[in-house]
Amino acid sequence: MQFQLFHEIQADLAKVEAELQKYVDTSLPTLTAASSHLLHAGGKRLRPAFVLLAGKFHNYALERLLPLAVALELIHMATLVHDDVVDESKTRRGIPTVRARWGNRISLHTGDHLFARSLLLISELNDPAMTAVLAKISVEMCEGEIQQMEATYDVHQTFRDYLYRIKRKTALLIAASCQLGAMAVKADPSAVRALKMYGHHLGMAFQITDDILDMTADEKELGKPIGSDLRQGIMTLPILEALRESPDLALRTLVAKKEKSQDEVYRAIELIKETGAVERSQIIARRYLDKAKEELTRLPAIPTRHTLAVIAEYIEKRTY
Amino acid sequence: MQFQLFHEIQADLAKVEAELQKYVDTSLPTLTAASSHLLHAGGKRLRPAFVLLAGKFHNYALERLLPLAVALELIHMATLVHDDVVDESKTRRGIPTVRARWGNRISLHTGDHLFARSLLLISELNDPAMTAVLAKISVEMCEGEIQQMEATYDVHQTFRDYLYRIKRKTALLIAASCQLGAMAVKADPSAVRALKMYGHHLGMAFQITDDILDMTADEKELGKPIGSDLRQGIMTLPILEALRESPDLALRTLVAKKEKSQDEVYRAIELIKETGAVERSQIIARRYLDKAKEELTRLPAIPTRHTLAVIAEYIEKRTY
Repeated sequence: MQFQLFHEIQADLAKVEAELQKYVDTSLPTLTAASSHLLHAGGKRLRPAFVLLAGKFHNYALERLLPLAVALELIHMATLVHDDVVDESKTRRGIPTVRARWGNRISLHTGDHLFARSLLLISELNDPAMTAVLAKISVEMCEGEIQQMEATYDVHQTFRDYLYRIKRKTALLIAASCQLGAMAVKADPSAVRALKMYGHHLGMAFQITDDILDMTADEKELGKPIGSDLRQGIMTLPILEALRESPDLALRTLVAKKEKSQDEVYRAIELIKETGAVERSQIIARRYLDKAKEELTRLPAIPTRHTLAVIAEYIEKRTY
Repeated sequence: MQFQLFHEIQADLAKVEAELQKYVDTSLPTLTAASSHLLHAGGKRLRPAFVLLAGKFHNYALERLLPLAVALELIHMATLVHDDVVDESKTRRGIPTVRARWGNRISLHTGDHLFARSLLLISELNDPAMTAVLAKISVEMCEGEIQQMEATYDVHQTFRDYLYRIKRKTALLIAASCQLGAMAVKADPSAVRALKMYGHHLGMAFQITDDILDMTADEKELGKPIGSDLRQGIMTLPILEALRESPDLALRTLVAKKEKSQDEVYRAIELIKETGAVERSQIIARRYLDKAKEELTRLPAIPTRHTLAVIAEYIEKRTY
């Protein structure tokens, strides 16, 4: 995410960063090393940013927004480190994963620890409704992961299966960041709802563009080889779109094949692109962004509302 | 745990069991299968029992105690399934582990899911102080796991390291079961505190007897081969006691050795037993049980207080 988008919360985002550093410091050297590695591996801090921006829609109170922003980034980090255990990636954002460096055990416990720390932060906000939001999406996020596992290499799954999955993988946490930021400052229920829905639609679009970039990005900029979804048998929107439109049995066989060579991955990407599936996926992402912007019309016309609209525009144009 | 100890809560424990069954049913076949497997693998339901028993110390309200009891058993199950990922055991309580049957990925997500479900249940009780207790111990429990990993095969660790670990591994969750059961029925703060401390001391004794049983139990009754701590390099109290008392370099070398044969494990157990370390460990467990019983004197003299004392006696005598 380009930094200038976050101009109005830039100073507070720096405070989030400092707090995050505190939260990964523990008395256990390996735990601290693994969490710090994860923290410094970068990341767009999108979830903290949405917490802070949503907090602008009522009495912006940093003392409540800061722990919340930290908590949401910690949860995001927890899901990343557990994903690494599962997908056996060697790098993320161009640097070695926690799992590649410290192994499965440390990754498992580091994820558990980050999640528990996050829960502790939220519980200290003393608002059971906020804790319940977090608990509810955590359950659903796990279900998404398991559905994804069950559906790998399944070329017969539907568009609906895909939407179920990306909602849980990405949209729920972004929606919750917007929703909880607004709840933390006691924004109007209608604003809380609009921000949550904005986050949902934006999150859906964000994941679709992610899935597109896994086929179209520059490998250096992406920080990992392209085609990783194809390799892992994860059926993304461009793949499903291509399979639906094309009677090409070669593509179907290639997609369903386990243990593809990198040449086979590149060949599959080519076949998919030839069907126009990437462009059709972009149109669907665009539709979600339009819906996100439509939600903004239900919010008071403060400058932050414009920022949120610009962020939606940016999602479509991002290249990594 | 012998069933007659739980006479006064027997009917409600059956309700906990029925609720647990509901909570492992999901729309995802693999998740349901893995969680059900874990649920039906047995277990003493010690944590739900303590929740219900602690609830007797004020206005016993099953509608609040039931979800809490379920939540604590779900957390316990979550830690078991994550432990299985980590310690690579093939069986637990005599039946295959989730990991042995479904692999690491399912184990990871099943554990995450159970923990999130548990959190959701607790958050629905609408009491931030209770959620905070749970969050706090979850953080510490993870730290215990990581400390255990860092300390494997380390023959120079101290008695204090051991206590740090077993508190996090076992005592915290039992203490929290007692504490939260009392909090759920709005018991007097002094009763909440005494029950928490009872649970703490009892939990410490429980883990020490567990560690003793890993050397002395009948393998059939235990449901797994004895000596698994030695095999995994986990320094339990009998091992540390033996190392402290005995100048025997053979024992030290054997304990520190990775990849021991089963014969070497049996030989180490023999050497440890010869030092009297088992009996000394039993004395330490006994001391914790005395402290647990002492806490009971601070509680009103209702019949449940006697039950809790009998449970403490039972811990010492258990053979599996």
